[in-house]
Amino acid sequence: MSSFKKYRVGAKVRLADVDPGDRHLLNGSDSEQRAQLDELAQELDDLQNLLHAEGKRKLLLVLQGMDTSGKDGTVRWVFSRTSPLGVRVAAFKAPSLDELAHDFLWRCHAVVPRAGEIAVWNRSHYEDVLVPVVEGWIDKAETQRRYAHINDFERLLTETGTVVLKCMLHIGKDEQRERLQARIDEPAKNWKFAMGDLDARKKWDLYQRAYARLLDATSTKNAPWYVVPADSKTHRNLMIAQLLVKTLKDMKLSTPPADPALRGLIVP
Amino acid sequence: MSSFKKYRVGAKVRLADVDPGDRHLLNGSDSEQRAQLDELAQELDDLQNLLHAEGKRKLLLVLQGMDTSGKDGTVRWVFSRTSPLGVRVAAFKAPSLDELAHDFLWRCHAVVPRAGEIAVWNRSHYEDVLVPVVEGWIDKAETQRRYAHINDFERLLTETGTVVLKCMLHIGKDEQRERLQARIDEPAKNWKFAMGDLDARKKWDLYQRAYARLLDATSTKNAPWYVVPADSKTHRNLMIAQLLVKTLKDMKLSTPPADPALRGLIVP
Repeated sequence: MSSFKKYRVGAKVRLADVDPGDRHLLNGSDSEQRAQLDELAQELDDLQNLLHAEGKRKLLLVLQGMDTSGKDGTVRWVFSRTSPLGVRVAAFKAPSLDELAHDFLWRCHAVVPRAGEIAVWNRSHYEDVLVPVVEGWIDKAETQRRYAHINDFERLLTETGTVVLKCMLHIGKDEQRERLQARIDEPAKNWKFAMGDLDARKKWDLYQRAYARLLDATSTKNAPWYVVPADSKTHRNLMIAQLLVKTLKDMKLSTPPADPALRGLIVP
Repeated sequence: MSSFKKYRVGAKVRLADVDPGDRHLLNGSDSEQRAQLDELAQELDDLQNLLHAEGKRKLLLVLQGMDTSGKDGTVRWVFSRTSPLGVRVAAFKAPSLDELAHDFLWRCHAVVPRAGEIAVWNRSHYEDVLVPVVEGWIDKAETQRRYAHINDFERLLTETGTVVLKCMLHIGKDEQRERLQARIDEPAKNWKFAMGDLDARKKWDLYQRAYARLLDATSTKNAPWYVVPADSKTHRNLMIAQLLVKTLKDMKLSTPPADPALRGLIVP
């Protein structure tokens, strides 16, 4: 299992230090890589079973990234072996009127993982320090307040039994062009394309700057951000699967102890 | 693909007609059976992708059955290849105070599948015509009213784009004894056992009668009940996987058509 310190945002690592084209985990032929991922996916299922059996702690995986960075694909492949019993995905879209009528963490709090569960957030509360910042809807003071609200919220989660892992799926601007163009050129993919994707692309640099800032402000000891090189889909999947397996192993999960009250009991 | 008419509750089929030990789908060695299930699970994933791509209709799978009948195991194996992106499991436990303060369908309505999604209910609104009936908390008139509320609710769902499939996982009383005893005898399984399971087992015949009545009253053309022989776990999984694949194929799902507005568009 690799060490991912170089990708963990902190005093020494910032978004700009990570190359979206980094493929250092790729090793062997395509089919060998698929086998590696499948083995990790299987290991993840075993660990998820233990998390469920223990029934106390929770795991939250936050996935962020520009359009086409592969958030859906990550869920599909990394959790390809995990039972939907124990993995709950929440996809955050533009907030509804009802959601806008509440503070920005309200809709997120409603879908945090329950004991024994893994929750995966496809986009998250971090959208609220991206779009509004890029569009200039909130000023610096409000942005700082939101960073603080986010850090407080995540401290609540981690201090009440949730392990929080955050991954920024980092693709390059050229890679995004190719992926968007494929959605336009291949009729069967047209439904995945939205004109709004081009508007966001025009603001690429503003988004990268907003990402760099939020990563710096919210990568904490207990809820770290990892920048995941994501131009290669296989590299992205392998890295996130490895991060998850390592995180769950570090939790030292185990089946609850035998119940002495059951010894010798016979079912009539 | 087998026809499952003989297992579909209606004028000619009732709970008592189905043998929990029926294994008619089993064919070949253990590893061949595993391969058959894996192929169905893969097919289910492909169909789920189409359901998501279409983004209009929904599928609801209701799983009911006595303790140890294999509801969790069904989810684990039948959906072993499906992305958690598109499959959402809701497990209904004894209602909370907040849930009791509402009508019995309130908590169910909150978790119906959204467009493009499969929802699996591990227990369901049918618990409200089981426990209260067996315990004598509600009289016949109220039970009839609840059947009618359930049929009305399911008509709302089916007339607004949800395909509803209901499976009663049917095990024999001896099989349940063996499964409960295993949870007692194997220390690593102790956490799955609850003393309350023995109380419900004492009322086995009352539960079977309550099941038979609710199946008769609520197996409708659009939301049929299938009685799934479940003494064999593999048989149970194969039958439910086949039912799901057939149901999804019958929906004639397809990718949305190409968008002419995208022709020739170049991503800058």
